[in-house]
Amino acid sequence: MPAHPFDEAIALTRIDDDCFAGHTSEAYWNSISPYGGITVAAVLNALLLHPRRLGDPLAMTINFAGAIKKGPFSIRVHPARTGRSTQHWLIELRQDGDAEPLITGTAVFATARETWSDIEAAMPPVPQAADLAAAPALRTIPFLERYAMRYVDCNPFAGGESSLTQCWLSDVPLRKIDFPSLAAFCDSFIPRLFVRKGAPRPVATVTLGINFHVDGPALEAEQGMHVFTRARANAFNRGYYDQEALVWSESGKLLATTQQMVWYRE
Amino acid sequence: MPAHPFDEAIALTRIDDDCFAGHTSEAYWNSISPYGGITVAAVLNALLLHPRRLGDPLAMTINFAGAIKKGPFSIRVHPARTGRSTQHWLIELRQDGDAEPLITGTAVFATARETWSDIEAAMPPVPQAADLAAAPALRTIPFLERYAMRYVDCNPFAGGESSLTQCWLSDVPLRKIDFPSLAAFCDSFIPRLFVRKGAPRPVATVTLGINFHVDGPALEAEQGMHVFTRARANAFNRGYYDQEALVWSESGKLLATTQQMVWYRE
Repeated sequence: MPAHPFDEAIALTRIDDDCFAGHTSEAYWNSISPYGGITVAAVLNALLLHPRRLGDPLAMTINFAGAIKKGPFSIRVHPARTGRSTQHWLIELRQDGDAEPLITGTAVFATARETWSDIEAAMPPVPQAADLAAAPALRTIPFLERYAMRYVDCNPFAGGESSLTQCWLSDVPLRKIDFPSLAAFCDSFIPRLFVRKGAPRPVATVTLGINFHVDGPALEAEQGMHVFTRARANAFNRGYYDQEALVWSESGKLLATTQQMVWYRE
Repeated sequence: MPAHPFDEAIALTRIDDDCFAGHTSEAYWNSISPYGGITVAAVLNALLLHPRRLGDPLAMTINFAGAIKKGPFSIRVHPARTGRSTQHWLIELRQDGDAEPLITGTAVFATARETWSDIEAAMPPVPQAADLAAAPALRTIPFLERYAMRYVDCNPFAGGESSLTQCWLSDVPLRKIDFPSLAAFCDSFIPRLFVRKGAPRPVATVTLGINFHVDGPALEAEQGMHVFTRARANAFNRGYYDQEALVWSESGKLLATTQQMVWYRE
């Protein structure tokens, strides 16, 4: 069986303990640089492959400092401090031996413990993914062919007064959800500015944060290959807007929450 | 006029371009380490004082990797990459020449541009701060005496099924809001676990993110010295919970949104 294009896109070769080599993917290319979500997934893959990793991802912040070009890149992930239950990572991505990184970031990994638990953010009652048609892919941008999006309540280009969208997402072809694909889903929502303006506009994610709400065994136990997402912006102001989103599994488990700040031109 | 204790607590001495020396504050002490918000404010102060700073804070992530002890500390902030409109920073805080940092983080600064703007997250209709009594301070923890909290709709220790609180916050004594105090406000909410359990429990913030929705001139123009805050958790699970909050000015302007992941024991 051929490898899934997602696995090919995030594949890394270990150079030393902290350093991994990768290559940009044609399948996950955006208009002028790689789709941000695939870069986030490759970085998370480096963390997951690191021999000193403790537990599972709890939170990560990825800052898009410069445009990545087609070709090879290197990811350096260094454990800055490891405690009893949490581990703090520094992240950089570079190309061509550049003096300055194109990606900066941090991540926290953590070990799970048995505790009182409660999920306040319940998944809204919505139709199942199987009962909805996928929105047609915009064939002009390669990475959009790698996701199926099933909007439950809206035309994403309605151009109304709210940026809220609710949507089922899945990989194309379908792929079991793991931490890298979950991280990539967190960048796959239609830009909030497009929703408000009813059409594409120039946008660029500046920084993206993800909080993970499941541990490895709980994510592994999920069988559904779609996630349900609810995304919105709080504010568009002075050239930057935010995006906040929640991501649930098909079984209704909250998997992740995510935030961005995005540069835009009207 | 004596300096405000907040300004004393975040005061820094410049060592070189990237390095600043500070000292923990008795006035903003928490139970076993400094109040996290004052540490975030000191870090942001270092960024604001840096000679190569571009524009105003857009986003920051601060990770609490190890416990800070009473005494001096050093903050290193380095501009990893500066573009035309955004600047990406690396952040570390150390004590006693430790090999490993106690704080790691990143920040993005940005220049504002005239654009189409819209604030979707409107402030709820609530009584003004002046019409509400401040909740009694818990005198056992020093930093709590440095904030006045005016809850608009709830007993924060109600122990119900929702972690949502809505609250006016201000410095004690009153102080004009600037970026460092706004950042500190983002860590000052009663822990969501206390709200759910109706009583204090062991908690420790692991990572905190802030997205800023105003630029410097807009923040400077605000006259009110209270902020209105709306905070909630999405999930308590396997020893960690999140907190999401919005912060508005007295004039109803959205100033910041913020997220945390918090370690807890029941």
